[in-house]
Amino acid sequence: MKGNALSQLGRRTAEPPITWLMREALVRPGLISLAAGFTDNPSLPVEITRDIMAEMLRSGKTGQPPLQYGTTAGDETLRALTARRLAQLDGQSPKAKAYSPSRMMITHGSQQFLYILTEILFDEGDIVLVEDPSYFVYLGIMQSHGIRGRGIRMEADGINLAHLEATLESLKKSGELPRLKALYLVSYHCNPTGTTTAAAKKAAALKLLRRYEKFAGHPIYLLEDAAYRELRFAGEDTPGALTMDRTGDRVIYTSTYSKPYATGVRVGFGFLPAPLLTAALRVKGNHDFGTTNFLQQLISRALSTGAYETHVQSLRKRYAKKAAAMVRACREHLPEGVEWTEPNGGLYVWARIPARVKTDLKSKLFAAALKQKMIYVPGNLCYADDPTRRKPNREMRLSFGSGSIPNIKEGIARLGKALKKVL
Amino acid sequence: MKGNALSQLGRRTAEPPITWLMREALVRPGLISLAAGFTDNPSLPVEITRDIMAEMLRSGKTGQPPLQYGTTAGDETLRALTARRLAQLDGQSPKAKAYSPSRMMITHGSQQFLYILTEILFDEGDIVLVEDPSYFVYLGIMQSHGIRGRGIRMEADGINLAHLEATLESLKKSGELPRLKALYLVSYHCNPTGTTTAAAKKAAALKLLRRYEKFAGHPIYLLEDAAYRELRFAGEDTPGALTMDRTGDRVIYTSTYSKPYATGVRVGFGFLPAPLLTAALRVKGNHDFGTTNFLQQLISRALSTGAYETHVQSLRKRYAKKAAAMVRACREHLPEGVEWTEPNGGLYVWARIPARVKTDLKSKLFAAALKQKMIYVPGNLCYADDPTRRKPNREMRLSFGSGSIPNIKEGIARLGKALKKVL
Repeated sequence: MKGNALSQLGRRTAEPPITWLMREALVRPGLISLAAGFTDNPSLPVEITRDIMAEMLRSGKTGQPPLQYGTTAGDETLRALTARRLAQLDGQSPKAKAYSPSRMMITHGSQQFLYILTEILFDEGDIVLVEDPSYFVYLGIMQSHGIRGRGIRMEADGINLAHLEATLESLKKSGELPRLKALYLVSYHCNPTGTTTAAAKKAAALKLLRRYEKFAGHPIYLLEDAAYRELRFAGEDTPGALTMDRTGDRVIYTSTYSKPYATGVRVGFGFLPAPLLTAALRVKGNHDFGTTNFLQQLISRALSTGAYETHVQSLRKRYAKKAAAMVRACREHLPEGVEWTEPNGGLYVWARIPARVKTDLKSKLFAAALKQKMIYVPGNLCYADDPTRRKPNREMRLSFGSGSIPNIKEGIARLGKALKKVL
Repeated sequence: MKGNALSQLGRRTAEPPITWLMREALVRPGLISLAAGFTDNPSLPVEITRDIMAEMLRSGKTGQPPLQYGTTAGDETLRALTARRLAQLDGQSPKAKAYSPSRMMITHGSQQFLYILTEILFDEGDIVLVEDPSYFVYLGIMQSHGIRGRGIRMEADGINLAHLEATLESLKKSGELPRLKALYLVSYHCNPTGTTTAAAKKAAALKLLRRYEKFAGHPIYLLEDAAYRELRFAGEDTPGALTMDRTGDRVIYTSTYSKPYATGVRVGFGFLPAPLLTAALRVKGNHDFGTTNFLQQLISRALSTGAYETHVQSLRKRYAKKAAAMVRACREHLPEGVEWTEPNGGLYVWARIPARVKTDLKSKLFAAALKQKMIYVPGNLCYADDPTRRKPNREMRLSFGSGSIPNIKEGIARLGKALKKVL
């Protein structure tokens, strides 16, 4: 008997394109990867973590709880600290219902939260509205579960509301609105474009979604992914969508401590309306009984001692410098006609090439960049499989997260050379 | 708009019965829970972990890698150490193909491995053969995914092979064999019965499964869950099914470091045939990009320094004493007609009550036990929803994992009182 017995999901799930890019970076010595979304190595909180560990493991009394199972929802202290912190960020009373720790689930990174949410909310064939372009790993989760994506056009301050309305209207007309369950927004310093969604746009989107619910026959949720919210190094913070969820049952909010603290410590969280939380906790129990207690208590201690805040402040300064170095290098090395964003947070610069040049993995430009020993994430990988438009193929995501400043400069210089060859 | 938009999985997934039991234990002061599968608190490796952390985080060079993302498959050193260790346990050459680290995926506990495997292998309506009774959290994963279970009768040394064959034959006759994908065995000191499957039975089961594959039209896998293998405190170790998988593509083997090291450190692993591994890694990437690097490097250091072995040795002695205390208490306090196992590993004693007494959550016995301030896991919760037989309702799982010896004794004494009231 040859072959295998894979499930539909097992057969369907595609290899993430990033896997190939990461492998290239490993096997080609001297390659500069501006593709990976890794965070900055030298800034990782080694000393902070060492001190917390020494304190946490100083006695049996303090050391045993983090080494034992916890609850499925997550450590009570960490949930309380997280809820209070988010209420503060959003300028709300910590007593506001929306920020109750009982509405929260702690996960192994916000990635796992997105995964479980997808499992409890979407069936094969369901539709999710996504930013166009959006976070490609989430697009991968959708692909794996057979979920259809519809891209909403982007502007400098988030989705184009007219296009959102037109899309809702078109789904209503085609009778597909009952398959629509959510709008997914990476609303702070978005991966890949760096865009932050204006508060007014989130509020307007919520209203629009609610208006179309009666044709859907069920709630349409706003799923807000705030993974990069803490990595803001310029401008003001924007209130989250929880502040606009008047009935408290339409917004799902997720974020993470992994990016701002340490990507090797996978602790994320999410707030959900009650019926979704119940289902999510059951599925989370089936995944792993709850997030590793050891990591939760590490983060909890980082928060309560203030070490987390100090760390995030210094991280922001560091990324500000790296972002500035990348933007300067773009100005210096990229030929005329190329456009790029100037981020005020996150890990990415998003660049757009003149229309006649393609950027995909099979393009002349990508080959030329490889020859120059640099790689980027082709923009087309960040677009959902939406049959109503062609995927743009003239953009690229450039990460300033993991490289040193000299590396970033050299990487952009090499990209400049590749572009000049191809243009 | 009321209601919610849950997926089929979201609606289907039932609350795990253990959740209720755990809550009871929290809200009733003075309650002795012999229900929880928690491990022993005082034996948790606080000092060992403190020393490893101090060493691991002593400098940026050693401390940064565990705080950064790793690979989806898992840390290379941990995979190599795990593969070598398992080959040794199985009495095989570390160079044997079956034990190649490249066949392995590291997960957040073996629970997550079971979950991902279920996702890539089974569709709604598929059938898994399970021990009767089996691990109830896995039965919960099956329920959540709409997978049907068929229970295989148990004997002192594992499944009844005649019943396995009869079940395969009956599935062949009913035309359901194409829906059968796997036999799931918790083969070492099984949760809940403590049974260890004899090597000869695993080999015979593999042969039987292969014989029926031509009627299934695809491979039928043996999924071996060895979560309790390390917690053996008497008798000899039994070779794992990987030693019997001649073509290297029918056995899936999973185990964990969480139970033997610390349940608050969720690190498990599994070996899979190549086509399954590819799919599993893609799904694992979607879950969380790979298991938390920080935890993997902790376990890796515990293994390479020998601290892990030392810890497991002392843990075995401790559990041997606790198991003996529970068995002695059963002899002293349980009325005539009650039978129980004498475990040589794991965390559980399995007791059987005279036929006229039920043990389920709604039974008189459970109520009497609650009144005596003790709880157990009712045996019926450990049986799959198999329409071909009634669920036995006269058994109970008694855990000696988390309680102190005085607690264990007192818990069994209370159970004895409750039994005497009801009998």
